[in-house]
Amino acid sequence: MLIVMKKDATQQDIERVIRKIRQSGYEPRPIPGRNRTAIGIVGNIGAVEPSPFLNLPSVKDVIPVTKPYKLVSREFHPESTVVTVSKEVKIGEGHFAIIAGPCAVESEEQALKAAAMVKKAGAHIFRGGAYKPRTSPYSFQGLGLEGLKILAKVREETGLPVVSEAIDHSVYDLVEDYCDIVQIGTRNMQNFSLLKRAGKSNKPVILKRGMSATVTEWLMAAEYILHEGNSKIILCERGIRTFCNHSRNTLDLSAILFLLKETHLPVIADPSHASGRREQVAPLSLASSIIGAHGIMVEVHPDPERALSDGPQSLRPDDLSALVKDVNKILNTKQRNEPC
Amino acid sequence: MLIVMKKDATQQDIERVIRKIRQSGYEPRPIPGRNRTAIGIVGNIGAVEPSPFLNLPSVKDVIPVTKPYKLVSREFHPESTVVTVSKEVKIGEGHFAIIAGPCAVESEEQALKAAAMVKKAGAHIFRGGAYKPRTSPYSFQGLGLEGLKILAKVREETGLPVVSEAIDHSVYDLVEDYCDIVQIGTRNMQNFSLLKRAGKSNKPVILKRGMSATVTEWLMAAEYILHEGNSKIILCERGIRTFCNHSRNTLDLSAILFLLKETHLPVIADPSHASGRREQVAPLSLASSIIGAHGIMVEVHPDPERALSDGPQSLRPDDLSALVKDVNKILNTKQRNEPC
Amino acid sequence: MLIVMKKDATQQDIERVIRKIRQSGYEPRPIPGRNRTAIGIVGNIGAVEPSPFLNLPSVKDVIPVTKPYKLVSREFHPESTVVTVSKEVKIGEGHFAIIAGPCAVESEEQALKAAAMVKKAGAHIFRGGAYKPRTSPYSFQGLGLEGLKILAKVREETGLPVVSEAIDHSVYDLVEDYCDIVQIGTRNMQNFSLLKRAGKSNKPVILKRGMSATVTEWLMAAEYILHEGNSKIILCERGIRTFCNHSRNTLDLSAILFLLKETHLPVIADPSHASGRREQVAPLSLASSIIGAHGIMVEVHPDPERALSDGPQSLRPDDLSALVKDVNKILNTKQRNEPC
Amino acid sequence: MLIVMKKDATQQDIERVIRKIRQSGYEPRPIPGRNRTAIGIVGNIGAVEPSPFLNLPSVKDVIPVTKPYKLVSREFHPESTVVTVSKEVKIGEGHFAIIAGPCAVESEEQALKAAAMVKKAGAHIFRGGAYKPRTSPYSFQGLGLEGLKILAKVREETGLPVVSEAIDHSVYDLVEDYCDIVQIGTRNMQNFSLLKRAGKSNKPVILKRGMSATVTEWLMAAEYILHEGNSKIILCERGIRTFCNHSRNTLDLSAILFLLKETHLPVIADPSHASGRREQVAPLSLASSIIGAHGIMVEVHPDPERALSDGPQSLRPDDLSALVKDVNKILNTKQRNEPC
Repeated sequence: MLIVMKKDATQQDIERVIRKIRQSGYEPRPIPGRNRTAIGIVGNIGAVEPSPFLNLPSVKDVIPVTKPYKLVSREFHPESTVVTVSKEVKIGEGHFAIIAGPCAVESEEQALKAAAMVKKAGAHIFRGGAYKPRTSPYSFQGLGLEGLKILAKVREETGLPVVSEAIDHSVYDLVEDYCDIVQIGTRNMQNFSLLKRAGKSNKPVILKRGMSATVTEWLMAAEYILHEGNSKIILCERGIRTFCNHSRNTLDLSAILFLLKETHLPVIADPSHASGRREQVAPLSLASSIIGAHGIMVEVHPDPERALSDGPQSLRPDDLSALVKDVNKILNTKQRNEPC
Repeated sequence: MLIVMKKDATQQDIERVIRKIRQSGYEPRPIPGRNRTAIGIVGNIGAVEPSPFLNLPSVKDVIPVTKPYKLVSREFHPESTVVTVSKEVKIGEGHFAIIAGPCAVESEEQALKAAAMVKKAGAHIFRGGAYKPRTSPYSFQGLGLEGLKILAKVREETGLPVVSEAIDHSVYDLVEDYCDIVQIGTRNMQNFSLLKRAGKSNKPVILKRGMSATVTEWLMAAEYILHEGNSKIILCERGIRTFCNHSRNTLDLSAILFLLKETHLPVIADPSHASGRREQVAPLSLASSIIGAHGIMVEVHPDPERALSDGPQSLRPDDLSALVKDVNKILNTKQRNEPC
Repeated sequence: MLIVMKKDATQQDIERVIRKIRQSGYEPRPIPGRNRTAIGIVGNIGAVEPSPFLNLPSVKDVIPVTKPYKLVSREFHPESTVVTVSKEVKIGEGHFAIIAGPCAVESEEQALKAAAMVKKAGAHIFRGGAYKPRTSPYSFQGLGLEGLKILAKVREETGLPVVSEAIDHSVYDLVEDYCDIVQIGTRNMQNFSLLKRAGKSNKPVILKRGMSATVTEWLMAAEYILHEGNSKIILCERGIRTFCNHSRNTLDLSAILFLLKETHLPVIADPSHASGRREQVAPLSLASSIIGAHGIMVEVHPDPERALSDGPQSLRPDDLSALVKDVNKILNTKQRNEPC
Repeated sequence: MLIVMKKDATQQDIERVIRKIRQSGYEPRPIPGRNRTAIGIVGNIGAVEPSPFLNLPSVKDVIPVTKPYKLVSREFHPESTVVTVSKEVKIGEGHFAIIAGPCAVESEEQALKAAAMVKKAGAHIFRGGAYKPRTSPYSFQGLGLEGLKILAKVREETGLPVVSEAIDHSVYDLVEDYCDIVQIGTRNMQNFSLLKRAGKSNKPVILKRGMSATVTEWLMAAEYILHEGNSKIILCERGIRTFCNHSRNTLDLSAILFLLKETHLPVIADPSHASGRREQVAPLSLASSIIGAHGIMVEVHPDPERALSDGPQSLRPDDLSALVKDVNKILNTKQRNEPC
């Protein structure tokens, strides 16, 4: 059970609740957040009677915990969250976003060229890695701050919002400054320290699924962010690790369907990292769209053969234009989502 | 390398090839099929020069083997195979089939009621298990022969072709007699003895993917059937076993995409067994349709709450009608496939 | 709940129980076995009161089912089962068996040479495949009946009991005739028709774990055999399919530990198929021994480089002798098991 | 290919090599480390001729890269690395270490009590979490700095070296100050920013395997640390995520065997997190010992039923004493390793 205090609760109010929990034979777990404190109750066997707590001063709510996650659940927050990225671009129920761009920002020229492609094709957000988490220390690790500056220039020239990945606290500060959305990558999904940092930000966060994370672990990671006060979270399914070797990962559409019911947060798909194969990106994008995902994130490169990373899974310019058209056709047919 | 003999090759012709292989320092592996013999060459390091074999009498072809499967590959047989199920129903490139019915035939009444639903909804083939492979010996194992007779009656009354699963040789004989398609289930995908039996049949076979089979193993299983002479094979993706617990299995759309390129055989999807959850069946069916699968197989039950097996994943009558409409909308939009 | 009838129960007795179940508002599921009938109760919500059934004539026992498997569980049958293979050889609590031999019987010469190695090394049972389930139809499929005859000769010459795999009903008849133990392979673990056949045999069965089977599914497969009347079942862990690519499969020692507690049946390990790498076979054998497995099954070949199958994972003659010594050292140290 | 510069190479030397690489038509990838610079060559198709580079001033070595990891491989560094933890304690070839302690430091009393147990039982290193990465933001997150101070007191009182986990850069600074070994947990195995931080430390690092990391990815993570200059790396296998539900994870002994051959770094096992079940910890520890691991890390708690985390997998005091004895018996039998 979780006792949620009002925003203006005093330390005295909180301590009163803590004492009451102890008197009832349970153990209090105060959880200070940015905006308010919640107090978990542990040590109980079976359900705890909520009324004695509801009557205490400054107690906002008492939530019976049937699932390990709370703030991210529809049970707790039934209406869908729509994340506002810019004046024109939103992601969530009724707002489908196409995010496209190269795996890595390689140069100003490459980025501007790619961004022109992305804009012309009708996509909504530009992606590009400045700090790249690479399996090998000998692989290209991104342009760093220079890459972020190029992204800012892309936004200036095209009007497209930009997203890039943060890999630690100090990079988070920078990406937050230069970009419209900060991405937390699959390898950092349970980097709880980074999640807490994201929770203190005002910028939207794309939280990718860990490559072998259960949906519960994923929602708990989002709970870390939300608990710190940032509710602008976009969940991104990017394929899970399985025994299969015909694709890089296995796109888990059932996870998307589960999340659409279970959480109020928007859910998008990344078919590029899911499949690792260019020819699968468009069909898996369409599949994600038709089941109700709120967006897709795909890799495009003006010249995939010369890409410094992820060339084989990057769409070519023409592929992207065709994909945007096909996605829009689906959205119109469904009449449920519309381009953001 | 594989040396394929002509159909009318004599035993003498075959032995001549075998001698030639031995003289060249390799090892012959004669592979007698129903219609023709092929002779594999093993023991070679690197490529084998084909010309000395091509010149021998009754040698039809010499196939360099770059992949472990041959007869099922597009490399060997570029044009798509379309399987004819009945005068009206085909499955394959340009012919999309919706297969629907209860997990198990429970009674004549239940089957006829379900079949009426299936027909009314506009689906093309009726499915129903008569011999059920069940994890527990204490679970309902199907009506057996009685179930097959009910299926025959369903066809008589509705005109729908019927499909049911064979679990061993003796059941294969029966299902072949009573049904239009014989299904080999996920647990028998590498029951090579049963695959050889299927290869000797004239009836179409639905070959489900083993729950942890690689696509190569799956194609090799189909190769067993085709090698014996039966090319009416429909591959059915039904989800793979992963660490996930939010769905029964994980539907592997990348496998379908891979197969559409790699093999000439038709490929369908079974979203009911993939997800194990009713509310996911329709969206996963649409996803499979939009990426180019040649059909779907779904479980429906007139009264899912009373089903003897797989109730929680069975569609209700109205769900099926809506699904067929939505699938047709997609096929029309794509203008690439049309209902069979 | 399961109502177990006495062996001499009449059809009338059975029908009386069935009526009683119906009257109580539940659904009866008669499960006729070779020796006795059991009647499952389904449709109940919550526990069923056993006393009304215990009082009926010819009812032997009423078993509340807390787990899906019953006859194989220690809950139902606390004392450990020891399987007697021959006058000298037993497998189970207190009797450790080393089973060794080539993947496939390739010729009389090879088999006799391998068997001499196996005997000299101090192993207890000879293994050799006569009917080989191979992923490819073009791979060597075994010598068939000739292979079984060679195995019989091996036993005659060395006194070692022999084990070989059965892949369908007709092969089961033959292997049962010629061998001391029949093996059901990983691909047939849920070939329920074959399991039922095994249940009607008097010969011990080695039941290998399916490559992605949960321990519950595995125990349920054994339950099929035991339910038909054959309790001489040896469970064999052979590695599970995971995302790993540094070994063929991943040996699941936790499964062995779980089974040692959960079932009364003997449990052995097959490190050859688990790892697929010769250099890992001995260490994984020792690991299996030290945690309490009742035996190991390993592949050996007089000349692994020329083996027709599984050469890279086959031990050489000297490896086996060293392994047997090391295993015996462990068994002596543990003073819990002793060589059979 | 990797060109390794001497430690005293000047910027001019480095630029000369870079120019030479460009002139040869390839692309240089300078990789500055703490002690020396290496320059990767990319863009080559096939092997690169090393001699033109070997002849340049200040080039120490030219390493053909047959595997993606280099500095951690035995190919590059054949002799085994032994990590010195304290005057008495080493880990690696010939030095087996038993690391034990509670999941989390809960209080000074609990930690000292646990440490007394650990010392009395004959284990070598004390573990205890001060900063706990927990799936839920509502779970106990550790005592933080207070916990580290308690660990320092444990060392003072018992003489045991202590190890604790670092979850981000700022925590790394603290753990490095207070502890003898810093642990990087499974969720941070590909937190490359943290790996680089570890590489700049003088303290030994325990690098746990990511829960779905391949052995190559794991070695690459170690390569990040080693590349920055810290070679005191202990790899810790802690089970992988599989479809199994009878244990928390699946201990991958094949990975340990693979690493013992492939890398010069020490490899230990964590059977507590691998199994998640107290009764499996001892047998899996013995299994790890007998196959040649250089140590084990186990959870113990003076009172597991009251543990704030991981109680069900924590050994009781007596369990640990028995385990240490059994491990020593194995090490003596093997006469290959001896207690550190």
